[in-house]
Amino acid sequence: MAFADCSTSAPTRTFLFSRLRPRRGLPSIPPHLLRGLPVAGFRLPSLRITNSPSSFPKGNAFLRNKQGFRHFRPFTVLASVSASEAAISTEASAMVIDGKSIAKEIRHEITTEISRMKDEIGVIPGLAVILVGDRKDSTTYVRNKKKACESVGIKSYEVCLPEDSTEEEVLKFISGFNDDPEVHGILVQLPLPSHMNEQNILNAVSIEKDVDGFHPLNIGRLAMRGREPLFVPCTPKGCIELLHRCNIDIKGKQAVVIGRSNIVGMPAALLLLREDATVSIVHSRTKNPEEVTSQADIIIAAVGQPNMVRGSWIKPGAVIIDVGINPVEDATSPRGYRLVGDVCYEEACKIASAVTPVPGGVGPMTIAMLLSNTLSSAKRMHNFQ
Amino acid sequence: MAFADCSTSAPTRTFLFSRLRPRRGLPSIPPHLLRGLPVAGFRLPSLRITNSPSSFPKGNAFLRNKQGFRHFRPFTVLASVSASEAAISTEASAMVIDGKSIAKEIRHEITTEISRMKDEIGVIPGLAVILVGDRKDSTTYVRNKKKACESVGIKSYEVCLPEDSTEEEVLKFISGFNDDPEVHGILVQLPLPSHMNEQNILNAVSIEKDVDGFHPLNIGRLAMRGREPLFVPCTPKGCIELLHRCNIDIKGKQAVVIGRSNIVGMPAALLLLREDATVSIVHSRTKNPEEVTSQADIIIAAVGQPNMVRGSWIKPGAVIIDVGINPVEDATSPRGYRLVGDVCYEEACKIASAVTPVPGGVGPMTIAMLLSNTLSSAKRMHNFQ
Repeated sequence: MAFADCSTSAPTRTFLFSRLRPRRGLPSIPPHLLRGLPVAGFRLPSLRITNSPSSFPKGNAFLRNKQGFRHFRPFTVLASVSASEAAISTEASAMVIDGKSIAKEIRHEITTEISRMKDEIGVIPGLAVILVGDRKDSTTYVRNKKKACESVGIKSYEVCLPEDSTEEEVLKFISGFNDDPEVHGILVQLPLPSHMNEQNILNAVSIEKDVDGFHPLNIGRLAMRGREPLFVPCTPKGCIELLHRCNIDIKGKQAVVIGRSNIVGMPAALLLLREDATVSIVHSRTKNPEEVTSQADIIIAAVGQPNMVRGSWIKPGAVIIDVGINPVEDATSPRGYRLVGDVCYEEACKIASAVTPVPGGVGPMTIAMLLSNTLSSAKRMHNFQ
Repeated sequence: MAFADCSTSAPTRTFLFSRLRPRRGLPSIPPHLLRGLPVAGFRLPSLRITNSPSSFPKGNAFLRNKQGFRHFRPFTVLASVSASEAAISTEASAMVIDGKSIAKEIRHEITTEISRMKDEIGVIPGLAVILVGDRKDSTTYVRNKKKACESVGIKSYEVCLPEDSTEEEVLKFISGFNDDPEVHGILVQLPLPSHMNEQNILNAVSIEKDVDGFHPLNIGRLAMRGREPLFVPCTPKGCIELLHRCNIDIKGKQAVVIGRSNIVGMPAALLLLREDATVSIVHSRTKNPEEVTSQADIIIAAVGQPNMVRGSWIKPGAVIIDVGINPVEDATSPRGYRLVGDVCYEEACKIASAVTPVPGGVGPMTIAMLLSNTLSSAKRMHNFQ
């Protein structure tokens, strides 16, 4: 539990756009909210609020891409923001990247595909999860994964072993799942008890079922041009998927990844490189993290330091993907704490063009990508398109 | 063959330091060369020319490290530079990183180790090279590798196959070498004829003998913290070795790698990251390569574009490792061409603190690292320390 807060003493009003509502049509931003709001009042460089574009209905928001204007899933102003409030609060103009909605959309797509697969070839994707010990957080994650599997139609297999199990016992279960044709993905919940060799155990998972994407052969293929990994690690894959689904250009953009873990930072950097971003990796030994980060068009923060990235680290208009989920003390919360990201959200909202909230940003995407990897694995094994 | 030149019309005189002479003692910079040369005349921020340091002989050059002054292999002024010339030409002050001498030193160390190994356990390291077709450059490379092996005491095995060989024939030889206990390293000379699948062939080389370090499992381990690759690709390994042997700090430095090839750029970036540099990767899709590069303390250029990196791309005092070897037309040369790097050498000499020449910089290091990898492989297989 950390003590950290980047809120200003007088909290600013936020002018939030909630987006990616799956419904059709183009709901307008109510004209009374637009009145008196100059275009320049928005720090989204690619967003233009216009009252009279030649070819689009009055009062809508569009994202401009290289080919000119194009329709985008519309922004809607949160109902709680009144006209006068909006006029006051234009300084906080970042688009909130709603990971929860996007993940829901992806899970819906996965459900459809799994149903089609079952109908056409009678195969149900299966995911095996191995949990050793009874850490509270791990137990929660595993339960959530199981629930998520059920919700999309993936069959889940669960093995819970006591804390004092031997490495051999874990390896025996992995071997069994490797040979089981009904299991298409195997996930070993980390961290493992300290008496086990994590590397030995992860290496034992068949590369064909390595839905976590942590096998060095998968990482090697991810790093190499012209090679394709069988699986991409779920959290970084989720980060890139958020950018894609928000139509945020990556190619040629300056991207900074903060953190270089095997699980998030490093594979995120490799993925951004594959997407043709100019990638910089900032880490604990970087002498001038603020200076490097402040040049980025896209920031992926994955360090586990609450509110580390302050407003001054952010280039106006940058897009921020915040992977951190850090508990900080909060006497006003019934639980005594609240979750914050690696990025100071309040400050980011004023400067960035788009930002993921914590919770509800990257978090829901990780499980969605795990389901997606499991489905891909089943499709590949059964040669189902 | 490219037409490219970055020389100014009036070539400036260069004041070169040749370093890493393996002899002992501290030869002085002749005092008449120092007279009238202000310390600030040198652009090497870490080099201080001093006439009266308290604890060192008069007139010598030292490199300062974090712990203060320390002895370093001494610089000697090239005999051809006279006092008056030196006084004129202080604007071109980069240290020339003499890859040829450093590679020679490494080959000497390898020779000693191989001799010790033979004496103590009777094992001679063996390197197998497979060449398909008769490309002139490939034939030259293979001949040079063979000669280098002989010079250090590595036994070389060579297979030359005709251009129209089948993939199966190549795979058969690889399989034979994989099983041969006298072969500790296998190298398939690239490029292969277009009818062959390079990926299939490279993947067939046993990871234990992959002295080129191109196997995705090796690259994956290189990328991952806490994992160790069995082999590191030779050219990027040579680049880092040059920095180490010149006592150039990498930790915490801003490093830019230009180019992201599987063979040089990408593994060089991963190596720099392992050395705790803050790493940025610039490539063909980067919109502002000059801007990004000009922030680097260390530049590794590996793009194959003659003289692409101009003086304006270089931060004063940066260290430059130039991997490019590009032929450019030169009517004054008997061969009609000369070799230049990816960096405009003349301009770099005026701004950088240290720079590798082309030829004679990274080139000789690649083969030295191949020999080093072969020795390491034999040591590992025979558990010889």
